[in-house]
Amino acid sequence: MKFAITITLKKDVLDPQGKVVKQTLQGMGMNSLQNVRQGKYFEIEINEKDEFKANNIVKEMCDKLLANLIIEDYKINKI
Amino acid sequence: MKFAITITLKKDVLDPQGKVVKQTLQGMGMNSLQNVRQGKYFEIEINEKDEFKANNIVKEMCDKLLANLIIEDYKINKI
Repeated sequence: MKFAITITLKKDVLDPQGKVVKQTLQGMGMNSLQNVRQGKYFEIEINEKDEFKANNIVKEMCDKLLANLIIEDYKINKI
Repeated sequence: MKFAITITLKKDVLDPQGKVVKQTLQGMGMNSLQNVRQGKYFEIEINEKDEFKANNIVKEMCDKLLANLIIEDYKINKI
């Protein structure tokens, strides 16, 4: 079973990387650009046929290693 | 208009970062884990009401800056 995980910074957390990307794109002439936020992305394959169990395993991975819950949120989608 | 961009390594490209994450998770006792691939994620806001035009602007951003098309693929989703 395969899952996509997107990890994003919480709304009020500064995103210097995203800011640099935004400035670069604007410098390239993309004038309609309003905002860029950068996040992280993982595709994870689990050897578990029960979707509920697999989802819980992926949640545990996010909580314990992949995401920093103080400043980040995560979303898990089955793919 | 807001878009989510996920950039992933092409299938045959090695992913050392993903490998390290995989080994770490396995070392933490996640035995059902089969594979991890790491990618990049951006949320981009465009000041453009026409969805087709906005989508084309985001595509141009991916082609010119965000993705390395030799080794990466990208997906754009309106959010």
